[in-house]
Amino acid sequence: MSLKAVLSKIDGEIPIALDRLTSFLRIPSISTDPAFSDDVDRAADWLVSDLSTLGIAAAKRPTNGHPMVVGHVGGSGPHLLFYGHYDVQPVDPIELWSRDPFDPAVLDTCRGRVIAGRGSSDDKGQLMTFVEACRAWKSVHGHLPCRLTFLFEGEEESGSPSLVPFLKDNSDELRADLALICDSGMFDPQTPAITTSLRGLLGEEITITGADRDLHSGSFGGIAINPARVLARIVASLHDEKGRVTVPGFYDDVSELPDMIEDQRKALGFDESAFLGEVGLARPAGEEGRSGLEMIWSRPTCEVNGISSGYTGEGFKTVLPSKASAKISFRLVGGQRPLRLRESFREMVRSMVPPDCTVEFTGHGAAPACTMATDDPSFELARNALSDEWPNEAAFVGSGGSIPIAGYFKEILGMESMLIGFARDDDRIHSPNEKYDLESFHKGIRSWARVLAALTQ
Amino acid sequence: MSLKAVLSKIDGEIPIALDRLTSFLRIPSISTDPAFSDDVDRAADWLVSDLSTLGIAAAKRPTNGHPMVVGHVGGSGPHLLFYGHYDVQPVDPIELWSRDPFDPAVLDTCRGRVIAGRGSSDDKGQLMTFVEACRAWKSVHGHLPCRLTFLFEGEEESGSPSLVPFLKDNSDELRADLALICDSGMFDPQTPAITTSLRGLLGEEITITGADRDLHSGSFGGIAINPARVLARIVASLHDEKGRVTVPGFYDDVSELPDMIEDQRKALGFDESAFLGEVGLARPAGEEGRSGLEMIWSRPTCEVNGISSGYTGEGFKTVLPSKASAKISFRLVGGQRPLRLRESFREMVRSMVPPDCTVEFTGHGAAPACTMATDDPSFELARNALSDEWPNEAAFVGSGGSIPIAGYFKEILGMESMLIGFARDDDRIHSPNEKYDLESFHKGIRSWARVLAALTQ
Repeated sequence: MSLKAVLSKIDGEIPIALDRLTSFLRIPSISTDPAFSDDVDRAADWLVSDLSTLGIAAAKRPTNGHPMVVGHVGGSGPHLLFYGHYDVQPVDPIELWSRDPFDPAVLDTCRGRVIAGRGSSDDKGQLMTFVEACRAWKSVHGHLPCRLTFLFEGEEESGSPSLVPFLKDNSDELRADLALICDSGMFDPQTPAITTSLRGLLGEEITITGADRDLHSGSFGGIAINPARVLARIVASLHDEKGRVTVPGFYDDVSELPDMIEDQRKALGFDESAFLGEVGLARPAGEEGRSGLEMIWSRPTCEVNGISSGYTGEGFKTVLPSKASAKISFRLVGGQRPLRLRESFREMVRSMVPPDCTVEFTGHGAAPACTMATDDPSFELARNALSDEWPNEAAFVGSGGSIPIAGYFKEILGMESMLIGFARDDDRIHSPNEKYDLESFHKGIRSWARVLAALTQ
Repeated sequence: MSLKAVLSKIDGEIPIALDRLTSFLRIPSISTDPAFSDDVDRAADWLVSDLSTLGIAAAKRPTNGHPMVVGHVGGSGPHLLFYGHYDVQPVDPIELWSRDPFDPAVLDTCRGRVIAGRGSSDDKGQLMTFVEACRAWKSVHGHLPCRLTFLFEGEEESGSPSLVPFLKDNSDELRADLALICDSGMFDPQTPAITTSLRGLLGEEITITGADRDLHSGSFGGIAINPARVLARIVASLHDEKGRVTVPGFYDDVSELPDMIEDQRKALGFDESAFLGEVGLARPAGEEGRSGLEMIWSRPTCEVNGISSGYTGEGFKTVLPSKASAKISFRLVGGQRPLRLRESFREMVRSMVPPDCTVEFTGHGAAPACTMATDDPSFELARNALSDEWPNEAAFVGSGGSIPIAGYFKEILGMESMLIGFARDDDRIHSPNEKYDLESFHKGIRSWARVLAALTQ
């Protein structure tokens, strides 16, 4: 009965909830770029103020980087912690956006109504599904469904440098019975998902330096070493002809999936062609002999995220570059140990750097993969609650992305996590023209109300 | 007698000549960047006005790109054409300049006085050595030494797109008995040089495209093709383990140097370690089994001048790039045919592009190598004139750089060229902190006066 009233309340308040989200999306809280640090701070203030309207004691908590927002509210039943992040990705290449990334709007498209703007899906829109569910609950019942802690991070898109120290320094305050994390997606638009495995992430930046300045390729071409060539050779050597990563020991701690999970995944009927066709591609380009779902959920990768050297402007400049840099990341699975692989990668790169060049490394995050405790009964309760809201039964899925927070919660706070999110594959997170379906937002809020009811019944 | 008076005049007028050069250097005539096109035009106006003060009928002549400056003056004896270029290279990375590249100044350094600024050596300072020699000659004699044509180009640093059509359209007007080109260097600070072979240049830009947008490397990493990896593999494959270029047919028209030239070059005692040590390097990095002078003067090369893909800003972005680009240039020697090699290169690249990617090519110039007519007696006359000015006897040298104009003069106007210049290896042309030695400028002007006297005696 009371859940019904909450769901009705949610349905009636969607326009106001959208206004709130829109004002939140207007704040360009790009955490990786120091030019936006005031904006990141402003987004934290916005959240503190919004939580306060729910009667939640919330505060901006300083770190060495961007602040955390933490809020608490008492109640009976289980103690749940909700996590989301309020920072967003950079927007370049800006010229590919069809509208200002920080002037959000609800647009009618051929696939339905969407909320357009940077952060709409990753993760401000998702974060607000939970907050709005709480608001409706409070409005109907006069109180929230249980004891709740809110933790909103401002550095998720820049490697979370302050997260581990913050969790360690505040472990007693933050430890709950279960963490709810909203930063993941649906399996497909009809099928909600609980993400039960996450790939880890190891980020590395390498810079090769040759001569002490850029040289003229006429005067020095042929005799002087070219760091761009050295870098290309290194990058090209990171995969073999079968698409396997060549870093020594890379597959040591990677095991095959249990047959049961493998079978369940086959039953999902993942359509590789449709998934790739969405972004203009046709053929899976990963390891030979692996299915598409394996490539994105359960196999590790090595990708070049950026590469730069020499003259890259308009026209042509016959320069022989002094430096060449690449940003390279690894998605990790199973028991792969990020710090060990970092050393192995660096050793491999060093062995390919010729005598007249030097190499510098900068690490950008190192988080292992994470597997959830699906045997805990709350997972089945939540799955049923989600199945009640959506056309198809909810699925336990893997995720190719890395949400290191789940690993840290387990490691530092001894707390299990449950990942539920409503993003779609075509949301263009991290890309131009990011969007979040209005249906994701609306049914996402309703889903959280159902999950809260199920977990606190 | 009269040469002596001209040389004295030159010595006395150096401060004023420096003032003129300084005002010319202040104009940021970067031809490759459309943002500077008004400045390129202003530099052309500056030259027209300066030539007029010598009684030379000069005009700015329109092309589809930046204008040519052409001037004529009558006289008896041989008809000489003088060529230089008034455009300059871009200045990035600007943060490595120790002063504003377009605020030129004469600085005292541990190796003597230098003129600092973009274009000081390449090619405004060099161009003005000839103009100042003419000015002194005219001032002493009341007229110039012979019939002269001046041709100043504004697109040399951006592939000379208008040069060939302009030479074709004005061949009768521009054809002279011999072209004098001042855009080359000394063999060493004591040894002036006449450059008797030039490498050709073939410029290519390739862009590989995969997905129709940048992707999230968590959602798509492993299944979607990464154009940066494709590009790295292509670039890495352009050389074999011995440093030889792998483009099919690349060495077909490359022959070994005649023993006589080889012996003369050995006698020059080129110091590889000193040459490389100047820029922080120690080891020749070209083809195995070749000397340093061969690598820069008489062997062809393939170099990456720039490469870019994905996120290259501050911090880290786990993007899977949609595009990856490289600017690649080839220095050509002997009979290598640039257009044939362009096709061969493109064919090789196409064969390495996987089905889900496309490749686009942009050509940036294609000029064959060029060998001068050293058996013409004027070469020995000029060599003796240079030997009279400098501590060491002048040398016939090769050049690793490409000055396509000499090839075009021969091909289109049937005119031989003589390349004399006073740049030094440490002038940092095309790099931050470009300079031109005051000695190069002063003795360069004196050298031209001597060469003019020798060729018109």
